[in-house]
Amino acid sequence: MLSEFSLIDRYFARRARTNTRRAALGIGDDCALIAPAAGEMLAVSTDMLVEGRHFLPDVDPHALGHKALAVNLSDLAAMGATPLGFTLAFALPKPREDWLEAFSNGLFELADRHGCELIGGDTTAGPLNLCITVFGSVRQDDALRRDAARPGDDVWVSGTPGDARAGLGILRGEWPQVSIDRTDAAHFRRALEYPEPRVALGLALAGIARAALDVSDGLAGDLLHILERSHVNAEIDVDALPLSDTLARLPRALQLQCALAGGDDYELCFTAAQAQRGAVEAAAQQAGVRVTRIGTITAPDTVVACASPGAIETAKAADVAGTHTRREAPAWPAIAWRDASGAPLNLTLQGFDHFHAD
Amino acid sequence: MLSEFSLIDRYFARRARTNTRRAALGIGDDCALIAPAAGEMLAVSTDMLVEGRHFLPDVDPHALGHKALAVNLSDLAAMGATPLGFTLAFALPKPREDWLEAFSNGLFELADRHGCELIGGDTTAGPLNLCITVFGSVRQDDALRRDAARPGDDVWVSGTPGDARAGLGILRGEWPQVSIDRTDAAHFRRALEYPEPRVALGLALAGIARAALDVSDGLAGDLLHILERSHVNAEIDVDALPLSDTLARLPRALQLQCALAGGDDYELCFTAAQAQRGAVEAAAQQAGVRVTRIGTITAPDTVVACASPGAIETAKAADVAGTHTRREAPAWPAIAWRDASGAPLNLTLQGFDHFHAD
Repeated sequence: MLSEFSLIDRYFARRARTNTRRAALGIGDDCALIAPAAGEMLAVSTDMLVEGRHFLPDVDPHALGHKALAVNLSDLAAMGATPLGFTLAFALPKPREDWLEAFSNGLFELADRHGCELIGGDTTAGPLNLCITVFGSVRQDDALRRDAARPGDDVWVSGTPGDARAGLGILRGEWPQVSIDRTDAAHFRRALEYPEPRVALGLALAGIARAALDVSDGLAGDLLHILERSHVNAEIDVDALPLSDTLARLPRALQLQCALAGGDDYELCFTAAQAQRGAVEAAAQQAGVRVTRIGTITAPDTVVACASPGAIETAKAADVAGTHTRREAPAWPAIAWRDASGAPLNLTLQGFDHFHAD
Repeated sequence: MLSEFSLIDRYFARRARTNTRRAALGIGDDCALIAPAAGEMLAVSTDMLVEGRHFLPDVDPHALGHKALAVNLSDLAAMGATPLGFTLAFALPKPREDWLEAFSNGLFELADRHGCELIGGDTTAGPLNLCITVFGSVRQDDALRRDAARPGDDVWVSGTPGDARAGLGILRGEWPQVSIDRTDAAHFRRALEYPEPRVALGLALAGIARAALDVSDGLAGDLLHILERSHVNAEIDVDALPLSDTLARLPRALQLQCALAGGDDYELCFTAAQAQRGAVEAAAQQAGVRVTRIGTITAPDTVVACASPGAIETAKAADVAGTHTRREAPAWPAIAWRDASGAPLNLTLQGFDHFHAD
């Protein structure tokens, strides 16, 4: 037991200790001590990843280490917060040295890139389960909340969502009738396994964007969270959706399915006043991330629902962190889907997939 | 799926929302926002509880809810920190309404008593796993660290450790040859299932005690963590160990086994200068908790080791949060066990039990 668990010390605790800068007291005491800068708040988010639900048993442990932290950093990005540190609690059936080495490398490579320290944790025997709680720093007034969207705001999305969902579809063998070459398949799989949290973009958007969140359940379902909390609706131009060249080679129905109903890309979806278009573009350039305007926030009474909210409800709607309630009035929150000419589209999106970090 | 998971919303998110006071932004956004009071640090600790390792599959869910938070609050107590809030991530095989109601009641009853809010979380399907990260507030200079013990300090312990370990032994049927009546058995079981985090005592000891930790792996093993980090040794008077009347009815060998090598009571073990004896007693009275002097911190070169450190190593020594390293010099850290007359005792403590919250 001891010799096995001492591996964990080698791969996590020692490395954390040598890196500790921001925490006044880190690993090895009852608590870590951490404080945001004067005048800032600590932004806190927690995500649990379970084998079989969020990753396959044979997942590349390096990719798993990356993704376990990436999905948490993505929550900080969506608040416009600067990463400070994280705790890692995990249950392992039986520690294997090569697995732990690859996992910890994937984890710390991403952590180091973002200056995010491991400040504490817990390890136990049990079915594989990873729970990370991440801490960032943000001025309260700059935080990119979900409830701040206003009618007339542009709706933006970063990157080219959908590739990760395509990677999952290929991994699952969902589309045997579709021919996808090996290079494209590798591109999709990398999007699934190594999502890049949009931390720099979130920071650059602070003070510019109004509402924001990270897309983990699919653009359509996650946008509904903004609409719900902001008491607004939205019109989305489906033809404006930014797709990767690789995704654009799939059949159109799959493109839309992946881009609108697939999670796992961890792109940011945000709203900003029309007057901020130049500022948004400049922020994106500064962060080195593509952003695309895909629609407009509308008042709740101005929309004709083309997709019923029920059709794009997320399965994690009642998540502890969720805000889902039964809706009495079917017209809100709702997304009106349009094509480039402004004509309504009646999209039928399949249910969301649960195979992602909630 | 949705109707099942909406139970979680009912039992956790709604209750959390109505309670939110300290967090500027709580459940429902990408992150919660929280800040310690001006001049204070945020104390952070995380614990993961796994079925079969930390609790039995048929555990009373009310007790589980209590204990999952209690072991985390205990870490705050051991730092002298004021509880502020916590995140709860958990994996559930299949949500059952009666189970969730009892679990959440046990959790929130304790949380409310300590003014500790649920500020965020995550829920997913999977083998039962609970991960709580708790946040408290403490002035950096007042934090009760593990590395602050000095030779000449008294060693103190709160409460009457050992009852929880007796409860576990009974639950496991470890001692069929020992007759234990039903009232005593119920007392032990309650100690195991409803440990009381010593939050008030930890707060009262801030500025009075030097080193402190909470006893989760057994007094002997946990005291070694203080010795190791403070570069000191200790002499402990075994006859001074405070035992409950109930534990005192068990055979002497079991008493010592339970009190020294059993965890799960979550009492505080702390050191303080001899000049602080009156202040420690006053702090304990203020907190309504019994404290007992059980020994003395000694310089590393003055001790003759009566128990080899190896014999009382904890199985979680290489925990991510642990500080265990291979010891080159066997004489440090070491505890010299004495009886009331000061004569050395050669204690043979059985290995630690893993059936507790690490």
